[in-house]
Amino acid sequence: MTTSTTFLGLGAMGSALAAATLDAGDRVTVWNRSPERARDLGARGARVAGTVAEAVADDGVIVACLFDHRSVHDVLDPVITRLSGRTVVNLTTSTPDEARELATWADKHGVTYLDGAIMAVPEMIGGPASALFYSGSESAFTDHRDLLDRWGTSTWFGPDAGLASLYDLAMLTGMYTMFAGFLHGAAMVGTAGVPAAEFAARQAPFLAAMTEQLAELAATVDAREYTGPDQQSLRFTDTALSALRRASTDQGVADDLLVPVHDLVRRQIAAGFGAHGTARMFEGLRSSR
Amino acid sequence: MTTSTTFLGLGAMGSALAAATLDAGDRVTVWNRSPERARDLGARGARVAGTVAEAVADDGVIVACLFDHRSVHDVLDPVITRLSGRTVVNLTTSTPDEARELATWADKHGVTYLDGAIMAVPEMIGGPASALFYSGSESAFTDHRDLLDRWGTSTWFGPDAGLASLYDLAMLTGMYTMFAGFLHGAAMVGTAGVPAAEFAARQAPFLAAMTEQLAELAATVDAREYTGPDQQSLRFTDTALSALRRASTDQGVADDLLVPVHDLVRRQIAAGFGAHGTARMFEGLRSSR
Repeated sequence: MTTSTTFLGLGAMGSALAAATLDAGDRVTVWNRSPERARDLGARGARVAGTVAEAVADDGVIVACLFDHRSVHDVLDPVITRLSGRTVVNLTTSTPDEARELATWADKHGVTYLDGAIMAVPEMIGGPASALFYSGSESAFTDHRDLLDRWGTSTWFGPDAGLASLYDLAMLTGMYTMFAGFLHGAAMVGTAGVPAAEFAARQAPFLAAMTEQLAELAATVDAREYTGPDQQSLRFTDTALSALRRASTDQGVADDLLVPVHDLVRRQIAAGFGAHGTARMFEGLRSSR
Repeated sequence: MTTSTTFLGLGAMGSALAAATLDAGDRVTVWNRSPERARDLGARGARVAGTVAEAVADDGVIVACLFDHRSVHDVLDPVITRLSGRTVVNLTTSTPDEARELATWADKHGVTYLDGAIMAVPEMIGGPASALFYSGSESAFTDHRDLLDRWGTSTWFGPDAGLASLYDLAMLTGMYTMFAGFLHGAAMVGTAGVPAAEFAARQAPFLAAMTEQLAELAATVDAREYTGPDQQSLRFTDTALSALRRASTDQGVADDLLVPVHDLVRRQIAAGFGAHGTARMFEGLRSSR
């Protein structure tokens, strides 16, 4: 008989993690602050715990997928003294510093801590496109690899508990800015009566193709070599972004999303780098600390 | 004997267009304000014109790929009275309203006007991934389709000359915001010593996979139905963006790029839609006119 894995937090993501674990034939215990979210999983064979204390009474891995960093403390602080020797895998979205704080707190209580970040939407969990990043305890990662692999491809980044979250948030920045840029574009063509779906059918393959440029941008940034002949100049990008903003406001679409991008470009031009490649925007991001 | 196609403007893009046309075996005439940029094309068989008047003396299609909208007038105004009955394909980056202005101006002088926008970088011209959008004169598009297809896949969007540019700029918004977001992410992981190239190797496939979400976002926006169960709520996105901004500034990376994205989210929450899907950001872009 295998031990039961405990899932704390049954939002869309927590429920997907628990469901994928049940589907693999593992024993699963679930808890959620509002108990009705546990009903479906209970019907599928999960043990539904009425309290956190009851949920962690077994000796299996404890998986937290809660609202935010504060929720992790709210839920686990009352039972932490009973968790010595146990392993907590925390998949709650947190900042690197928050993950490091939890690692220190766990360590103080004799708890093995693995921080994780999920590069997938709930529907993708357990499927081939789902990837999860981990950092913190290496032994937790290797000892429970079978469990972790039920949710997606697992990668361990190192013992600094903040690394998975740093990587995760860095990846999400590109996603959120891309989604926002897409909605901006949809609003632009929408002014000419073009449905967003028609625009998406062209935008998606175009952006997918443009991701192939990221390796080149990265090589430029790593080498700090912004003067190669194949680089699109900051001055050219300035003209393009000016046209973009003018076209947006002409059509009644707010150009707010483009302002900070344009500002990064113009600050590098003002510093005398107009003929340099556009990747030099990177320097402005780092030096603003 | 075929007529010669005239290329005005030999920046990286204009040169690539002329070179692809030469490669196809067509006769080509080129002109550039600084004549040294014409030398290579001359060596490959293009006729190099010393003046614009000389460049347009033949009766072939005139392709303009100049710095900006004003340059098109600067270059063509002095010769426009001689161009009655001719066709101008303008591939200079311009706004929809600028393209419409040129269409009216061309029409007044008996010139057939086709506006185009290039969804490719110069190295892609003539290759399978190169796409060009056109709008304006339908007969110019169909009569010269062989020429246009030498540069990439050609699509005509309609008689409104501004449509190609509107589509182009809308597509580029997603690209620039994605690139900027990638550089932001690279700056974040860079604070932990991770090279941008290592980050790009993970970010590129992730973002390419995420483009598959655009169709769903678009369907939501087209239906104005922001309450479906599978939508990521604005409240959840607010938490994620807060974590992202906090993590950025904690690591010494400016969070400027995320501010307008977050503002769009928070404005919809303030209007009472926190439980609605994140695609509702779209409404804020449109209503800010």
